[in-house]
Amino acid sequence: MRITLIGSGNVATHLGAAFKNAGHQIVQVWSRNLQNAALLAYHIKAEPIDQLAEIDPNTDLIVIAVKDDAVEDVASFIPIKNILVVHTCGSKSLQTLEKYFVACGVFYPLQTFSKNREIDFNSVSLCIESTDKNSTDILLELGKTISTQVTYVDSNQRKTLHLAAAFACNFPNYLYAVAAALLQEKQLDFDLLKPLILETALKVQEFLPFKVQTGPAVRGDRQTMAAHLTLLQHHPDWQEIYRVLSQGIIKMDKHGSA
Amino acid sequence: MRITLIGSGNVATHLGAAFKNAGHQIVQVWSRNLQNAALLAYHIKAEPIDQLAEIDPNTDLIVIAVKDDAVEDVASFIPIKNILVVHTCGSKSLQTLEKYFVACGVFYPLQTFSKNREIDFNSVSLCIESTDKNSTDILLELGKTISTQVTYVDSNQRKTLHLAAAFACNFPNYLYAVAAALLQEKQLDFDLLKPLILETALKVQEFLPFKVQTGPAVRGDRQTMAAHLTLLQHHPDWQEIYRVLSQGIIKMDKHGSA
Repeated sequence: MRITLIGSGNVATHLGAAFKNAGHQIVQVWSRNLQNAALLAYHIKAEPIDQLAEIDPNTDLIVIAVKDDAVEDVASFIPIKNILVVHTCGSKSLQTLEKYFVACGVFYPLQTFSKNREIDFNSVSLCIESTDKNSTDILLELGKTISTQVTYVDSNQRKTLHLAAAFACNFPNYLYAVAAALLQEKQLDFDLLKPLILETALKVQEFLPFKVQTGPAVRGDRQTMAAHLTLLQHHPDWQEIYRVLSQGIIKMDKHGSA
Repeated sequence: MRITLIGSGNVATHLGAAFKNAGHQIVQVWSRNLQNAALLAYHIKAEPIDQLAEIDPNTDLIVIAVKDDAVEDVASFIPIKNILVVHTCGSKSLQTLEKYFVACGVFYPLQTFSKNREIDFNSVSLCIESTDKNSTDILLELGKTISTQVTYVDSNQRKTLHLAAAFACNFPNYLYAVAAALLQEKQLDFDLLKPLILETALKVQEFLPFKVQTGPAVRGDRQTMAAHLTLLQHHPDWQEIYRVLSQGIIKMDKHGSA
């Protein structure tokens, strides 16, 4: 496919590379900042542009991969109306694009992207949605060229998925950061925790999380929880986090869910 | 080495298998319940016992791998006083054993153990502590036969490490459970989140967590956070968790730590 990329951030970069590697042609890369556009365009052999009016109409798909809050603004300035346009946001509905284009959709890679870290797109969950059957087929097919996990997810479901991703990714990462800070206070190396963090994530690839919960809260070990809270006495914010999460674990239904 | 195992739970089972595989001889396995002792003993070719008075003094090391709260009770009933004895608890100090034995120590595998899931002990962080240099050397050497990550950690440091493990393992697993429950409400498969969970854990093997924080809170995206809180309106407990953790992320020092 001939694909036009709008954006040059983490998602645009990783997605652009995945499309390129799958044999698609990236026609142009747009960024507000021409240097950023040029940097990404250079890597994926595309033409850099910084004006949405310069979009080449000879393309099959326009992918808007900009910050969530900028999607609608950018969409409103795209002059081409009869080419399939998708956004890549978990938090934005399909409606955001519907008023601007004849055919549009969502191409949401459910993953955490960071600069300097390669992503194996093959195992990224791609969530597809669109206005019509034809566009859906195109997007599902495109998705399958870069990932083995392609699923149709409607806007309502995607909202929940995006929220769940905060619980599955953003919040755990923050808790890793708290753990790292606690270790640093005692001159302990964060490396000590890395195998534990990895095993915790590997375990739920195989078992449902509520079935493999460990730790003092699920054992009802109040003595250890009290000792932990005492250790946190100089960090009232982390004490609060400890209390709220332990309460959640204690209330967790062992037979069903969180 | 000739090793005696006190306990037949998750830690005793995984540790026993690792010792056996490294070529050590497990002399006996004790459990309050002889059937449990027999089951583990059968797998690692040891003698099962259910009386601490029956411990064979012809052993080099006694490993107490019982529930945290039972360690001291069990230690007080071990009749042999002149053989090296260790416990495996993150939350118990070395002092717990010091009053009962001439030489004692701690052999704490910092990992989350579940029945039915194999652990590659090679990458488990083993935290060693003991009363004397000779015992320390023995334990460090033993540790190195089953893992590449063996570190001396004193009781004071280990308390913090055990607390940090709650933040790095128990709490993230609970958050995975909340995410799974949210998905279930919208008929979405938990499989969708698995690559994201794994990538989040893999990323911090390479980068410090505070450097790779993603999500609406770290971007200061109040619109998305408000939308997420609205989605959680029927789950006040999860709303509270969302608020407390987002506050933590917002306050996180980008230049140093959590």
